[in-house]
Amino acid sequence: MNCLPSKHAIHKIIRIALEEDIGAGDVTTASVLQGGEKGRAVAVAKSEMVVAGIEVFKETFLFLDGGLKFKGLATDGALVKKGVVLAEISGSLGSILTAERTALNLFQRMSGIATLARRFSDEVKGTKAKILDTRKTAPGLRVLDKYAVKVGGAYNHRFGLDDGILIKDNHIEAAGGITAALEQVRRNLSYMLKVEIEAKNLKEVKEALAAGADIIMLDNMSVADMKECMKFVKGRAPLEASGNVSLAGVRAVAETGIDFISVGALTHSVTAADISLKIKHGF
Amino acid sequence: MNCLPSKHAIHKIIRIALEEDIGAGDVTTASVLQGGEKGRAVAVAKSEMVVAGIEVFKETFLFLDGGLKFKGLATDGALVKKGVVLAEISGSLGSILTAERTALNLFQRMSGIATLARRFSDEVKGTKAKILDTRKTAPGLRVLDKYAVKVGGAYNHRFGLDDGILIKDNHIEAAGGITAALEQVRRNLSYMLKVEIEAKNLKEVKEALAAGADIIMLDNMSVADMKECMKFVKGRAPLEASGNVSLAGVRAVAETGIDFISVGALTHSVTAADISLKIKHGF
Amino acid sequence: MNCLPSKHAIHKIIRIALEEDIGAGDVTTASVLQGGEKGRAVAVAKSEMVVAGIEVFKETFLFLDGGLKFKGLATDGALVKKGVVLAEISGSLGSILTAERTALNLFQRMSGIATLARRFSDEVKGTKAKILDTRKTAPGLRVLDKYAVKVGGAYNHRFGLDDGILIKDNHIEAAGGITAALEQVRRNLSYMLKVEIEAKNLKEVKEALAAGADIIMLDNMSVADMKECMKFVKGRAPLEASGNVSLAGVRAVAETGIDFISVGALTHSVTAADISLKIKHGF
Amino acid sequence: MNCLPSKHAIHKIIRIALEEDIGAGDVTTASVLQGGEKGRAVAVAKSEMVVAGIEVFKETFLFLDGGLKFKGLATDGALVKKGVVLAEISGSLGSILTAERTALNLFQRMSGIATLARRFSDEVKGTKAKILDTRKTAPGLRVLDKYAVKVGGAYNHRFGLDDGILIKDNHIEAAGGITAALEQVRRNLSYMLKVEIEAKNLKEVKEALAAGADIIMLDNMSVADMKECMKFVKGRAPLEASGNVSLAGVRAVAETGIDFISVGALTHSVTAADISLKIKHGF
Amino acid sequence: MNCLPSKHAIHKIIRIALEEDIGAGDVTTASVLQGGEKGRAVAVAKSEMVVAGIEVFKETFLFLDGGLKFKGLATDGALVKKGVVLAEISGSLGSILTAERTALNLFQRMSGIATLARRFSDEVKGTKAKILDTRKTAPGLRVLDKYAVKVGGAYNHRFGLDDGILIKDNHIEAAGGITAALEQVRRNLSYMLKVEIEAKNLKEVKEALAAGADIIMLDNMSVADMKECMKFVKGRAPLEASGNVSLAGVRAVAETGIDFISVGALTHSVTAADISLKIKHGF
Amino acid sequence: MNCLPSKHAIHKIIRIALEEDIGAGDVTTASVLQGGEKGRAVAVAKSEMVVAGIEVFKETFLFLDGGLKFKGLATDGALVKKGVVLAEISGSLGSILTAERTALNLFQRMSGIATLARRFSDEVKGTKAKILDTRKTAPGLRVLDKYAVKVGGAYNHRFGLDDGILIKDNHIEAAGGITAALEQVRRNLSYMLKVEIEAKNLKEVKEALAAGADIIMLDNMSVADMKECMKFVKGRAPLEASGNVSLAGVRAVAETGIDFISVGALTHSVTAADISLKIKHGF
Repeated sequence: MNCLPSKHAIHKIIRIALEEDIGAGDVTTASVLQGGEKGRAVAVAKSEMVVAGIEVFKETFLFLDGGLKFKGLATDGALVKKGVVLAEISGSLGSILTAERTALNLFQRMSGIATLARRFSDEVKGTKAKILDTRKTAPGLRVLDKYAVKVGGAYNHRFGLDDGILIKDNHIEAAGGITAALEQVRRNLSYMLKVEIEAKNLKEVKEALAAGADIIMLDNMSVADMKECMKFVKGRAPLEASGNVSLAGVRAVAETGIDFISVGALTHSVTAADISLKIKHGF
Repeated sequence: MNCLPSKHAIHKIIRIALEEDIGAGDVTTASVLQGGEKGRAVAVAKSEMVVAGIEVFKETFLFLDGGLKFKGLATDGALVKKGVVLAEISGSLGSILTAERTALNLFQRMSGIATLARRFSDEVKGTKAKILDTRKTAPGLRVLDKYAVKVGGAYNHRFGLDDGILIKDNHIEAAGGITAALEQVRRNLSYMLKVEIEAKNLKEVKEALAAGADIIMLDNMSVADMKECMKFVKGRAPLEASGNVSLAGVRAVAETGIDFISVGALTHSVTAADISLKIKHGF
Repeated sequence: MNCLPSKHAIHKIIRIALEEDIGAGDVTTASVLQGGEKGRAVAVAKSEMVVAGIEVFKETFLFLDGGLKFKGLATDGALVKKGVVLAEISGSLGSILTAERTALNLFQRMSGIATLARRFSDEVKGTKAKILDTRKTAPGLRVLDKYAVKVGGAYNHRFGLDDGILIKDNHIEAAGGITAALEQVRRNLSYMLKVEIEAKNLKEVKEALAAGADIIMLDNMSVADMKECMKFVKGRAPLEASGNVSLAGVRAVAETGIDFISVGALTHSVTAADISLKIKHGF
Repeated sequence: MNCLPSKHAIHKIIRIALEEDIGAGDVTTASVLQGGEKGRAVAVAKSEMVVAGIEVFKETFLFLDGGLKFKGLATDGALVKKGVVLAEISGSLGSILTAERTALNLFQRMSGIATLARRFSDEVKGTKAKILDTRKTAPGLRVLDKYAVKVGGAYNHRFGLDDGILIKDNHIEAAGGITAALEQVRRNLSYMLKVEIEAKNLKEVKEALAAGADIIMLDNMSVADMKECMKFVKGRAPLEASGNVSLAGVRAVAETGIDFISVGALTHSVTAADISLKIKHGF
Repeated sequence: MNCLPSKHAIHKIIRIALEEDIGAGDVTTASVLQGGEKGRAVAVAKSEMVVAGIEVFKETFLFLDGGLKFKGLATDGALVKKGVVLAEISGSLGSILTAERTALNLFQRMSGIATLARRFSDEVKGTKAKILDTRKTAPGLRVLDKYAVKVGGAYNHRFGLDDGILIKDNHIEAAGGITAALEQVRRNLSYMLKVEIEAKNLKEVKEALAAGADIIMLDNMSVADMKECMKFVKGRAPLEASGNVSLAGVRAVAETGIDFISVGALTHSVTAADISLKIKHGF
Repeated sequence: MNCLPSKHAIHKIIRIALEEDIGAGDVTTASVLQGGEKGRAVAVAKSEMVVAGIEVFKETFLFLDGGLKFKGLATDGALVKKGVVLAEISGSLGSILTAERTALNLFQRMSGIATLARRFSDEVKGTKAKILDTRKTAPGLRVLDKYAVKVGGAYNHRFGLDDGILIKDNHIEAAGGITAALEQVRRNLSYMLKVEIEAKNLKEVKEALAAGADIIMLDNMSVADMKECMKFVKGRAPLEASGNVSLAGVRAVAETGIDFISVGALTHSVTAADISLKIKHGF
């Protein structure tokens, strides 16, 4: 199940977004329209994309005006061609015009993320590797960004600082070494979280493994170094490759047999999917 | 003056972003550290970029922990080379580690926007054209996105639906034509806002001009068509080119002598600037 | 269209107002009533007035108790005589009693504003002058205050500091003169906003006009001085009279042929319209 | 002590008011000023008034910019002549200009209320009567409105629905009579609140007294009827006159020997005190 | 009427509680379920209890998912035996599972309070004494805590600091004695609130009575001392016993003939009622 | 480190709690005091207790009035005797009186929880068992409740639904069995969370172990059954005892050699620690 964030969480984002855009009022619509006009709009994919966020798109229109009718014509996760109609909205023309930009901003970002996640996932097909996202999301939009990643076929790393332990080099230094850091964590923390630790080379991987790390992150290693680490670890702990993995390079990393590859670009460098809303006055 | 949004507006964004990332607590830092460790961090540009958001970066650390010391070493708008140190933060190691990701997410997005805005601006140098942003921003982050655009040397179109009138094709259709729409607006609206109207061809440009539009947006026209329109208008109203103008194509558009070119990609398809935080335990 | 503020904006005001009045609970109603009583109430105009805010009145009752039935019997903008029934509310007697004061406070203020705006508008009938409001509104209620002004037949100046440029004497002094201020603004600001500038005498009007001001505000001038300015300007820019214009004096100002007259008293010195709610227990 | 509302309550109002006025930013100030200008401003009474809200005035400037210096030169409750300087503010010129209108809107309303409350209080001097306010306040501003009433020398009735019991005719009807209503209340309610009940004539006053009302409100009675009621009650319960008491008529009511006179106009029909801010660029 | 707090107040508590528990999402439910499963749950009393909060229990489920069906099978105030079914919930299995803990936490606390309040009330049956709660409630939950007290058959003291006057020893000392404190209060305060004052011995009771206290609180007195005070006061003012009155000792206090006995433990030392939710997959 | 929740989280709770208690204002303090009185208060333990929440206690006073001085004299985790002074507060007497109850409500609850957690922990000393809390906390106060548990020497189970997976019987039924549920989870979920599953008997324990559960919860088993399960599992997965474990019975459970014992009563049935504030007027 590609569990969509709760309506509550989605509405919070939509409310902020609509307030930001509308401010004291949509002066254009208010002054040009008489107030009772009806209209119908279709959202159309202007290039090939993986759809993500159709419900968020819908909720944005309905949040502004509960009287609008929304008909979704595509489902999240679908790969659609250019020209496909994704949804129809009908009702108050003024409401459609006022909500248009905010609804598209959310939908285009989410579909853009899903489309890129799908490309990365496709690239590693046939290998054991799972593509992971990171916490490099647009501030305030993480629930949507991470949902879109899953829709695209990739996987979520921890959501935030509270639901996963990732011990980085600075934590290690502060604790006085990998073994000390891992011991310190085990003494203090919820026993329900796995402990992942960063390692910069084989030596550190060895120490992490010996000290009982649940997962080991190979930080910015070459493919050759990754292979060496995997040879040593022999499946005793899952390994994650991290650090500027590009679409061009991801296949080579995946073919090492690594378990996870995390990709910040999935969410920090999004290209919005091209979706347009064509609005008709009257029915 | 590149007026930074108010502290109040910035803090609202930072609060949402930190709450989103920290949730119930930074379990890694809380369990590995003893609590009193001090540290120092430097933010380093990992590639050439236009810096934007150094104050936002600072406020994120200080919002979490008012006891941190922050020293900015670059100013917004500066073009910096790879390797340049942008800022130093010192104080509680735990606070630095907890704020790190959120602070970077904001700073990298803003600098990414400014860097792209600079490239577009540089591209049209020597022409009369000003590069404008759009309302295609990341929901919730518009004040930062639009500020970064200015830092990069481009200009802001209206902030939202309440501070500018832009009559689009659907408004025109609802009003019964360009002339009717413009008359309707003048009857109803604040006399302090200029009225911009969309035109798809020369015929519409002529009607808009005759009906007294303050600005005319040329919607998705070819360069040839733009030239024809300009020839007709002869400066009687400023013209704006709109619709998928790429970095490669922007020069040709600018050379028509047009007044404004709006570019959605400035904010809807951002590539985060590459900035890393190197943290040292102890002073 | 007298565009009413969005439901979202209205509900925000209503929520604050009800929370303020109800606090920990309506102890009178809770202790006297059994809980299931039904009632019916009529809102009656106790003096002649222009109705404004019938929707806000309705939403206040419905916000507290969605089960109430509300029937509006007058429309915003109507001039009603003493004794006219404006609305009927029926349903839970307790809910009606609890919402009563808050609903009336909003409705009476709005109708009071509209009534005064109508009187000013009527006073200038036959002249070219439009009556404008100012930003001297009750903090937190501006969307309602400004809506009521329009209902009364007057016009809105800018909504706030973000949707209009008004350069006052202090701005001028800071910039080093009228010409410098206007140049400075044009360099920095959104091209979609008109620029209004304050002038204290004919000399300043001349400079403002020469420097390209879109609108000129004549600050606290005598009628004679206004006439002189108008004679000079000859329609090259709209002029606005500002500064303690009373109902008694507004006609003389309007007859100069001026374009706009702004009146702070419309919203800063409101006399609530007299409306009472007569409630009946049972149907 | 004229207990000012808590800083927390004041800041909540100020935040809403500033957000409402500033919206996406003060575009005039941002575009005319360079950013570092300093200035000094004085707030001057433009007519005789009772000062109220000097702290609220101060907090508005400081809320926007903690670096401003504020020097209060008048104290709440003082009756000042036209021309008196009430306060000095110095620091960032931009901050002063941006906060100006919001700060004045609050200060002028509060001083307007205090001035009117003083006139009513003065009018009843030498009698036993205390002037009371009502719940007819500007929604969202009740803590300030009620504070200003006290500053002016009048008294507060209950703050809201939760801190006083006032049984009105509809409650009485619902309960099946005055006696039943009072019994019902005593069975159900917090024993710490006094019970006030409305009476329309002598007969109802008698029943209320017999049933143990703590206070009796004489609703819209003539002075003659009030006298008759007082003669009967003979001090066994305090009495309150209510219903459209004007400044002209209040003395006659007070001379009946009544305990309280409540006046809705104190807060529902405020004339803003005339205060202006004169700002100087530089020190 | 056991007036339940407003839906608005209840929803505010529920929203905070659900956000606290769900955070970024119910990961267990999201990963185990497919998404469309239906279920039915029954809430069962696991020991004898007084039911309180059935509406709050219901609203928690409906707040999360408006599509759930809730059927209340017990009413607030009912004393139920172990094994009694209190409510049935049906609809989305995932929603039921996600809301379960939060709904129970609220319902169990409220029923625990009501159960204890009932035991205290039963203990003083046949005497004149009323059991009162205090302000020693769980921060944020006072409206629910105080409602549960009433459901259990005890009474509410003031809700908070704003709806009742209770002069304690420190206030007395600051004012310079009991008489001075009472005079000071009468000069300054809303005439709608009764004035209660603390007395530590008979001498203080005498002074308080002479100075016109409405209610006198006997602070931590022995039963013998209470009797002496009552003998002196002879009903001229109600008396309240306060200070660590236990279930075992309450009868003796009540039999002195005292009017009120306040019991902090009712809300500060709650034992949650034992209620479990049995959930079935499918209908 | 007993990581205290962030100041931000603490302040959110304090703000809600103070608003709830103060409402429209502390009328007693405002009317008895003149406004400038100074005072000093000491918080004293009235019975033996484990201190928890001294910082929260402090922040409550400082949140209301930043000018107060607070001196902590005990540290969280300390076992103190009756009569020990825990803290001193000095400054505005009015502020101390107004904050008193809210500050104590928080501090007493937290210390009550820590004291009980300590008793459970002491009870299992010498065994391998760790005492765990549950999600049965007071809604809105979970961060404080769980912190107090740690201060008392017990351990935290997951914080909420988002940072740990606990598959209960209903999840199992919905998935079609233990094995299916565990497989389903592994397919869908963040790889950073451990998976705990409920088992009602040895058969289920066996299946859970075979299917790779990270932790197994023995739900309401007898000590004998627990022993049998442990004998079978032989340390291959940690085991947790759950279900109404009392202080009297916890030792027997611990002596089975089990890893964890979760105790809902730690937070759902708190007895507030007895702390009083003695306030002196003047220094």
